[in-house]
Amino acid sequence: MTDFQWVGQRVPKVDALIKATGAAKFTNDISFPDMLTGKLVRSPYPHARILNIDTRRAKRLRGVKAVITGKDTPGVKYGVFPDSRDQYLLAVDKVRYIGEEVAAVAAVDEETAQEAIDLIAVDYEPLVPVFDPQEALQPAAPVIHVHAPNNISTEMFVKHGAVEKGLENSRFQADEQFIIDGLAHCQMEPYVALASYNAISGKLDMWMPHQSPFTKQKGLSNTLKMPLKNIRVLKSCIGGAFGGRSEVSPADFCAALLSMQCGRPVKICYSREETFVTTRQKHPWIIDIKMGVDRDGKLLASKIKILADGGAYNSTGQIAISVAYTIFESTYRISSLSYQATRAYTNNPIRGAMKGHGIQQFMFALESVWDILAEKAGMDPLEIRLKNIVKKGEKLNSGSQITSCHLRESLVRVADVTQFKKKWRSPSPRRGIGISCSSMISGFNLGFRSGSTAYIKFNEEGEATLFTGTTDNGQGNDSMMVQVAAEGLGISMDDINLISADTDLTPLDPGSYSMCAAFVSANAVKAAAADARRQIFEIAADRLEANILDLELRDKQVFVKGSRQAGIPVKKLLVQACRSGKPVFGTGYFRPDIDYFRDHTKKGRQKGQMTGAYSFGAAVAEVEVDSETGVVKVLRITTAQDCGFAINPMAVEGQMEGSVGFALGQALFETLDLRQGQVMNASFFDYKLPLSSDMPEVCSMIVESNDPNGPYGAKEAAEAVHPAALAAIVNAIANALGIRPKNIPITPEKVKKLLAASQRTIA
Amino acid sequence: MTDFQWVGQRVPKVDALIKATGAAKFTNDISFPDMLTGKLVRSPYPHARILNIDTRRAKRLRGVKAVITGKDTPGVKYGVFPDSRDQYLLAVDKVRYIGEEVAAVAAVDEETAQEAIDLIAVDYEPLVPVFDPQEALQPAAPVIHVHAPNNISTEMFVKHGAVEKGLENSRFQADEQFIIDGLAHCQMEPYVALASYNAISGKLDMWMPHQSPFTKQKGLSNTLKMPLKNIRVLKSCIGGAFGGRSEVSPADFCAALLSMQCGRPVKICYSREETFVTTRQKHPWIIDIKMGVDRDGKLLASKIKILADGGAYNSTGQIAISVAYTIFESTYRISSLSYQATRAYTNNPIRGAMKGHGIQQFMFALESVWDILAEKAGMDPLEIRLKNIVKKGEKLNSGSQITSCHLRESLVRVADVTQFKKKWRSPSPRRGIGISCSSMISGFNLGFRSGSTAYIKFNEEGEATLFTGTTDNGQGNDSMMVQVAAEGLGISMDDINLISADTDLTPLDPGSYSMCAAFVSANAVKAAAADARRQIFEIAADRLEANILDLELRDKQVFVKGSRQAGIPVKKLLVQACRSGKPVFGTGYFRPDIDYFRDHTKKGRQKGQMTGAYSFGAAVAEVEVDSETGVVKVLRITTAQDCGFAINPMAVEGQMEGSVGFALGQALFETLDLRQGQVMNASFFDYKLPLSSDMPEVCSMIVESNDPNGPYGAKEAAEAVHPAALAAIVNAIANALGIRPKNIPITPEKVKKLLAASQRTIA
Repeated sequence: MTDFQWVGQRVPKVDALIKATGAAKFTNDISFPDMLTGKLVRSPYPHARILNIDTRRAKRLRGVKAVITGKDTPGVKYGVFPDSRDQYLLAVDKVRYIGEEVAAVAAVDEETAQEAIDLIAVDYEPLVPVFDPQEALQPAAPVIHVHAPNNISTEMFVKHGAVEKGLENSRFQADEQFIIDGLAHCQMEPYVALASYNAISGKLDMWMPHQSPFTKQKGLSNTLKMPLKNIRVLKSCIGGAFGGRSEVSPADFCAALLSMQCGRPVKICYSREETFVTTRQKHPWIIDIKMGVDRDGKLLASKIKILADGGAYNSTGQIAISVAYTIFESTYRISSLSYQATRAYTNNPIRGAMKGHGIQQFMFALESVWDILAEKAGMDPLEIRLKNIVKKGEKLNSGSQITSCHLRESLVRVADVTQFKKKWRSPSPRRGIGISCSSMISGFNLGFRSGSTAYIKFNEEGEATLFTGTTDNGQGNDSMMVQVAAEGLGISMDDINLISADTDLTPLDPGSYSMCAAFVSANAVKAAAADARRQIFEIAADRLEANILDLELRDKQVFVKGSRQAGIPVKKLLVQACRSGKPVFGTGYFRPDIDYFRDHTKKGRQKGQMTGAYSFGAAVAEVEVDSETGVVKVLRITTAQDCGFAINPMAVEGQMEGSVGFALGQALFETLDLRQGQVMNASFFDYKLPLSSDMPEVCSMIVESNDPNGPYGAKEAAEAVHPAALAAIVNAIANALGIRPKNIPITPEKVKKLLAASQRTIA
Repeated sequence: MTDFQWVGQRVPKVDALIKATGAAKFTNDISFPDMLTGKLVRSPYPHARILNIDTRRAKRLRGVKAVITGKDTPGVKYGVFPDSRDQYLLAVDKVRYIGEEVAAVAAVDEETAQEAIDLIAVDYEPLVPVFDPQEALQPAAPVIHVHAPNNISTEMFVKHGAVEKGLENSRFQADEQFIIDGLAHCQMEPYVALASYNAISGKLDMWMPHQSPFTKQKGLSNTLKMPLKNIRVLKSCIGGAFGGRSEVSPADFCAALLSMQCGRPVKICYSREETFVTTRQKHPWIIDIKMGVDRDGKLLASKIKILADGGAYNSTGQIAISVAYTIFESTYRISSLSYQATRAYTNNPIRGAMKGHGIQQFMFALESVWDILAEKAGMDPLEIRLKNIVKKGEKLNSGSQITSCHLRESLVRVADVTQFKKKWRSPSPRRGIGISCSSMISGFNLGFRSGSTAYIKFNEEGEATLFTGTTDNGQGNDSMMVQVAAEGLGISMDDINLISADTDLTPLDPGSYSMCAAFVSANAVKAAAADARRQIFEIAADRLEANILDLELRDKQVFVKGSRQAGIPVKKLLVQACRSGKPVFGTGYFRPDIDYFRDHTKKGRQKGQMTGAYSFGAAVAEVEVDSETGVVKVLRITTAQDCGFAINPMAVEGQMEGSVGFALGQALFETLDLRQGQVMNASFFDYKLPLSSDMPEVCSMIVESNDPNGPYGAKEAAEAVHPAALAAIVNAIANALGIRPKNIPITPEKVKKLLAASQRTIA
């Protein structure tokens, strides 16, 4: 570590100053003199046929420059995967949830746009809706999509080994059902899209918060039927994503279509309510888990059944229901298993990606079951986990290899620091302690976009410009890339200009989801810096009469290691490179070695490597419960994260603390309150996010395992802490109450009900 | 030629549509909501000491946001060459010409800025000025700069062989003096600079018309004492340059300093008058030429003395007085020569680069002398030129090699097409015909910026983005680069996005001066495309089981040449490249093999290659003179240009026609009318530019010599036509009048004076 000048150091983010002073330009801060305001007409019905849309009065309103309905779109359907595109850009036949987009207008100001929206008359024929996923799967349920008469949006099956036999052979068994509510991302930045179409050049410029400019560009190309090269997604600052900003959004293509129609830039900025209701949300789940262990607590068999409420359209449903299995097997040796997950269509809002899709839902349930089994087996929660967790070098059932793993170390660390075993066995009055862990992937197969390229160019003073396609959603990716480049180039972070996340300017990159940034994108940056350094060394070796391997690069000079000889300024070497006909230009590429395949039949066959590396997190939560009020106070959360190597420990800790905040909200407060398809709490007043005053004391520990393929050993950081902390809180509440909550969030009312039902009070 | 799909074709410019429709964004079209207007306080005196500057009243004016004087600048001097920096950013001690910048303000609007300017009180102590360069060199002349007590701005000496002996041995001699007036560039876009400084990030964004973003960036870094990486020059459309937009301008650094002071974007847009008076202008010259030829007309000796009026500061003076020699020796075998050029400081406006600096001035004189010598030797003008012009393979006295040359072919072609010899010997009444030729360089030693790099990246559909640092001033460089890339990549020009001329985004490039674009920048683009193609072929060869050399790339597919086998889509190969861990990314570099050196002593030693390639032009002009009114009408100009290979013949012809327009103006109309240092005709009403109705019939012929080092054989195009056409017009007038005009422009008054002095009329 100490050999490094920039990586591994606690450096402030490169955008800290502009963010702190308000100088940062988010999409809504970007304006053009002739820009129009766009607004969307949304369905008031959860399920209805559209009989007619009359836009004539709106079109006649002074100040209205464009009005579009489904007829003005290219008539295609969109969705995340080519085989699951089920939604028209603007509803043409039916609406399937309250809030669905039906028409769009662009006008000179917000008031006029709103007036125009109100003047658009849509005739609906209401249809019978269905909101409960279990009901939706009944034969008599209303059919939401013609292509899915059974209302099954997507299904997944995995089978491995002799499950029934495994269960039979089990000494201890658990069979439990868990229910998890839907959540909203609550990014601080509301969704906003700005489109500027140039009819002369045919080029479309777009700004919006996103997780990958290339994914947005591709989504726009698909929905607008426009060549990729004519669409440019430009960089703006982004106020949070959490998985919710990867798909193409109606705001994106409606702003584009409106701009194309009237030849002026159009900005659509969602209200907070629209952001809550019509952007993708976390899937509510019902999970049935049956698990059996032998007398030593070793897992023999698991039988898992999941029903997810997908809402009105597919979105990322396929992924949501598959990742639970993925993370299960990369955390614990699963032995025999059957896994069946179904995602039902309902007339609720659309559910998609949020913070690991379905991982937290599942890990809450799984980690609850581990505690149940531990109790049955007479073991403590740490003990049973240590018996079953994966280790470095193991090959998973799916075929993936674990290349680095300090999960054991992480669990032991949080247990030791908190005196977990002692406190768990004899909790103080009203207090409880819980432990949990999880794993996480670092990158995923994203086809053409699985790998990342980075370039580094130099100006005539030897300062560098780094080009990377990755996105910074606030987590510090921009800073990480500059750190890695500075380390490789032996120059100061201040000497590096960064160009990132622009489809025209930067090379292809997976983007800032599937946890690619550290493992994939930073690896590409490291390779680009190494490439530039090699070119510089080749010239320097000659001048210094030294072997390339004996050279080092620091403070913009090349030295012979250990020699007192004066260094050669890099600038001189750059000039010499130009003169010799080959200027220094670093290019680097990294693509994780992934080849995972799974068939979609009930046979659930699979093979190959799923991700570049697995990372791991563990947490211990300590809580206090007021049996009078039912209020749970989380006192302390101690987390450990194996992120391979912390490129910026301060940023990793920040992300770990953020994960604790998410876990806290999901465990105790957050629920998207739906009644008859209507979100009842679509505001920060009604939707209870944890406040800073709700935050417990947090202790974050980084446990480095140095992945052999990660840049400087780094891999994904901090996301496993979220499910671990969530389940740890639940387990701590169970430890305090002596009763186990099986649905989250665990509100004071639920605590009181649990206590009442069990006729217990706690001392 | 016919093998090429894109190069060599008459394709419309890539920016034709946006230019034709007015959608193109020039710097003045770029605005920001909080942008301020900047204005400059200028000296009303040609020479004066500054006693005091009182800005208090201006600063108090409502709406004024920043006021700067010399004290608010970094205190450095600027200028083109490190050893000739002689001007403060804002005058601190003295002012040296009428129009010199003394202070600057930024205010909320133009009226307020103007009012503030008027409120700034500058106390001057007028000093004796000197306007005539000959007077300036007298011992008693007022001293303009302390560092140059003799008022010599710069001098140049070349000596080669035994000149006096050569003159003695000459059978025919000429000894003439020529006088050439100063000119203005008259770019359609007035000078304008927009600066946006971000105090938080410390970054400065700049837009302005320029010939190289990197040269402007470097100039700003020098004048603002700011690291290069903090200065970004961005692309905007440019409305003409002609050499006048390479140096850093007071508008540039004043806009920057004002923006830094008040934290808002500042735009300074010069009035037409400011553009005329205070941007760089063409040097007025006095040239003495003594030349001798043997009985066969072969040049034996030349003795050349040049006095240039440089105005108040150095600017590009060093180059201006050296290029005459350069072009002399690359057009004619010079045998023995002495060349002495002096640039005097005067209290006139500053003279700098314009269309070949000093080439037209000199070639007008030289080509007049050839006609005089031809007459003395009893030869015709074509004959004497053909005896003396350079040929391919010759090594010049300076040490440069001529790698390709169709100068003879060009001269013969224009003579043949016009029946020159016949018409010259027996002109029609009042009519005359003249012939002339010239050469031009293709790129020059620009230090770190002598070479150009280009990159090509691909999106996931196989469309490409080309990065090049070169600038398009209107001549079509952007289009040329796209053409060359399309040819190399086997894709359509429409499939290529171009990113050009942005210091952050694009790689180092010499810029669009010294005639680098075709020879240097397009060569880099060609290399980048070849690099990408090679990578694609390497993958395809495997799949097609073919040798790389047998492959061809067209219509986004790779084929085996001559085979009927189906091609492989490039997109598939690009995906495969990604999967194999090395995505296709083309990089190309080209640096002309130049190593020219000249010492600055009176010995005038020199050696090495001056430029990448020489190009050549020839012209025949046919005129009609009205002896009554003195009005010259140019009837027809026939030009031929050896540009090696015409990448876009339509663009080359357009540039040739533009050169004819310049020649026409300089021959007959244009002069910057100075009286006591004051420009008397600083408007398009007073300064006579040729109108389209003044334009003669123009016949442009491209003569291709295929330079061995040029991209597809290309080198500089069309600039040699300017001096050739200028001198041809003059020679034609001499042919018509029987008397030789020796100063230009040849106005009707001058024609009448010539006729009166010689007591001749023409039939």
